Amino acid sequence: MVVDANFPTAAEALTALREGHVSSREVVQACLDRIREHDDNVEAWAFLDPELALGQADRADEFRARGRPLGPLHGLPVGVKDILDTADMPTENGTVLHRGRTPAEDAAVVERLRTAGAVILGKTVSTELAVYSPGKTKNPHDPARTPGGSSSGSAAAVASFMVPLAVGTQTNGSVIRPAAFCGVFGFKPSHGLISRHRILKQSPPLDTVGVMGRTLEDTALLADALIGYDSRDPHSRPRAHPQIGRILAEEPPVEPKLVFIRTPVWDQAEESTKDALRELCEHIGDISIMELPPVFDGALEDHRRIMEADLAVSFAKEYRDGKDQLSNVLREMIERGRQVLAMDYNSALARIADYRAEIDEITHEFDAILTPAVAGEAPVGLDATGSPAFCTIWTLAGVPALTMPVLQGPNGMPLGVQMVSAKGDDARLFRNARWLLGTLEEE
Amino acid sequence: MVVDANFPTAAEALTALREGHVSSREVVQACLDRIREHDDNVEAWAFLDPELALGQADRADEFRARGRPLGPLHGLPVGVKDILDTADMPTENGTVLHRGRTPAEDAAVVERLRTAGAVILGKTVSTELAVYSPGKTKNPHDPARTPGGSSSGSAAAVASFMVPLAVGTQTNGSVIRPAAFCGVFGFKPSHGLISRHRILKQSPPLDTVGVMGRTLEDTALLADALIGYDSRDPHSRPRAHPQIGRILAEEPPVEPKLVFIRTPVWDQAEESTKDALRELCEHIGDISIMELPPVFDGALEDHRRIMEADLAVSFAKEYRDGKDQLSNVLREMIERGRQVLAMDYNSALARIADYRAEIDEITHEFDAILTPAVAGEAPVGLDATGSPAFCTIWTLAGVPALTMPVLQGPNGMPLGVQMVSAKGDDARLFRNARWLLGTLEEE
Repeated sequence: MVVDANFPTAAEALTALREGHVSSREVVQACLDRIREHDDNVEAWAFLDPELALGQADRADEFRARGRPLGPLHGLPVGVKDILDTADMPTENGTVLHRGRTPAEDAAVVERLRTAGAVILGKTVSTELAVYSPGKTKNPHDPARTPGGSSSGSAAAVASFMVPLAVGTQTNGSVIRPAAFCGVFGFKPSHGLISRHRILKQSPPLDTVGVMGRTLEDTALLADALIGYDSRDPHSRPRAHPQIGRILAEEPPVEPKLVFIRTPVWDQAEESTKDALRELCEHIGDISIMELPPVFDGALEDHRRIMEADLAVSFAKEYRDGKDQLSNVLREMIERGRQVLAMDYNSALARIADYRAEIDEITHEFDAILTPAVAGEAPVGLDATGSPAFCTIWTLAGVPALTMPVLQGPNGMPLGVQMVSAKGDDARLFRNARWLLGTLEEE
Repeated sequence: MVVDANFPTAAEALTALREGHVSSREVVQACLDRIREHDDNVEAWAFLDPELALGQADRADEFRARGRPLGPLHGLPVGVKDILDTADMPTENGTVLHRGRTPAEDAAVVERLRTAGAVILGKTVSTELAVYSPGKTKNPHDPARTPGGSSSGSAAAVASFMVPLAVGTQTNGSVIRPAAFCGVFGFKPSHGLISRHRILKQSPPLDTVGVMGRTLEDTALLADALIGYDSRDPHSRPRAHPQIGRILAEEPPVEPKLVFIRTPVWDQAEESTKDALRELCEHIGDISIMELPPVFDGALEDHRRIMEADLAVSFAKEYRDGKDQLSNVLREMIERGRQVLAMDYNSALARIADYRAEIDEITHEFDAILTPAVAGEAPVGLDATGSPAFCTIWTLAGVPALTMPVLQGPNGMPLGVQMVSAKGDDARLFRNARWLLGTLEEE
């Protein structure tokens, strides 16, 4: 277990940088040292060039020394999942089929990170084409267990203090699940808040950029830096910036009313998870428990249909030219996807509005939803990344979801619990999460 | 032939209204008189309540008398296709299945018209669910001929001076074709410029609101009033308003370079149409002639696939509950649409970007494209609305298209010619059209 350092959070590092107690080179060097020491056991990185990272740090320090205007993440290292294009590093999308791929331009998110002054420390490991087939990464709490996926490297790197913040993506459970398995905060914002321009396209109605950090505040910091309208992403919509960091710091006007929702896949949760969640609800005390209405019964099937049909188009070239180099699981998804009827696909897409409306209804009555993030602690074995089933409905509905590392499994592994809100309610989700974390600390 | 009155244009009527020479009640009453006199032969209106229209006119006059702020169309009557929801009139979508349907709220376009001060004169006839099966309307130039569709009533009403301006919609050729057949200007703007909120949904990637008028300036006036971002339409994007009316009035900085494009369906044009267009090109003199690159060979098939697959979902309820009351042609389209694979549907959608890029290429070299609007004059017979084939590619690509009534067929019927530009180039399209009209007048 490599999770033992008392490393500064992103917020602490930024304060130290701002106050001149530390340089960006020193912060980046500390990350690189940490990686050199521990990454043989974790393998969180798909690409890492220490000189490239230190060069960015030096430029950040020089900028600061000259008194030039600085962004909110100035000098701070951030890890980026290896499905986001980077102009100065390879982007291999977790597949041998894209080995040596060097895009000419940055993803919109990477542009935003650079504008915010961040140092792109390196590229974190993704599963094969950000679907299920695992990369090399191990869970930093137990190298015999999966870190979860598809944002495996981002979760493992943040969990093992190799970098304070990392960017991931989620089409089903790819941010929440690895964050929950690795014991960090993971946030999947409302669909459309962060641009997917120049990120590997799986399924545009579902694909969502997410963020990971070791504290709620750090996670908000990165989300705030990435959120913004981008006309190059067809699902991006101009909206007022949610100002998550600012709202997070406010006290809720009244004590939030929470509801615990089992979801239709509750049976898939391990007994120990059910027990841990029951205990958590008892701790909270004033929490309602409800089932999702029957309209959600087909939600997992709708998600599967949309995602697989989209994979068939998004990965048509990989399927045509390199079918043999795809994993069986992905090849079978694509082959099922090739058979989906447009009518069924479009009907499933149309039902997203219904799911969203039901969640809106629930959040009229309750301030936030509490629900499992995963079925249990990270499973033993590196040949799979665990079930995303507890994330599917929220991803499909495009609502914001946050996993918080507040539980522990029977083997001492971290176990996230998920908080969910209505679409667009990202900032209040964080405020309610902070309130809940405060409540738990008091006990 | 009812097209003989020397009725004021929209611009003239607005000036007279502004200068107090005429009241809105008088303008509306003149339209109602004209309709009473001629509509038995044209049948352009699906719903018309003279008292409702006069009531709106009186309110407009009262507003003006009180010196309150007035919109750009204040007091002007406008016809609205009967697939746009109106809170104060029925909206029956051209099908017996929706007979007596009275929506509670206005379409976004109707909201905009009311905000602009327009009087909603009445609802104009649409074909069945805005697809091919004709309504009752006849061509005002020859009642034995089709007015074209699906915006049949809008085109016929404007052509027969029953209303100066009318709103239509186009998913294939439903604005350009009836305008070309009836001898009025018809404009289909760039996809996404005008909101489709609360308009009968056929195929969101294709559905486009368009406008008709008797002059280029009038057409621009109505387009300018309707264009604007609407977050309730998922294809609406925030953009600078194109200010068509303002740009239209400017002189082109240099003489526009036009290109004549036959399109892959040139063989479907009648010989007399080909002759008329050849003559037009000779008149213009300095015009290039080119073929579309082979990438467009599959465009009509892509359009068919997208539209039919979307019809299967959009009209699933009508198909399920009232299959026998649908026309054969629509039922067969839906049944083909039910068989389309999601992969083929999504691949066709993805190719829209390719088509658009090719048109961008062409418009880098040329200022505007000239191309047939229709195969020939409006066909004899009221059981069909003519071929939309010369509109399909431009609708699919989402580029702006304008038909101008500058030609005549062998039987003296009007024959539109279509001008097309790159997506987003709506205002320059009008400026180039005005230049072309000036050139033709000189001769």
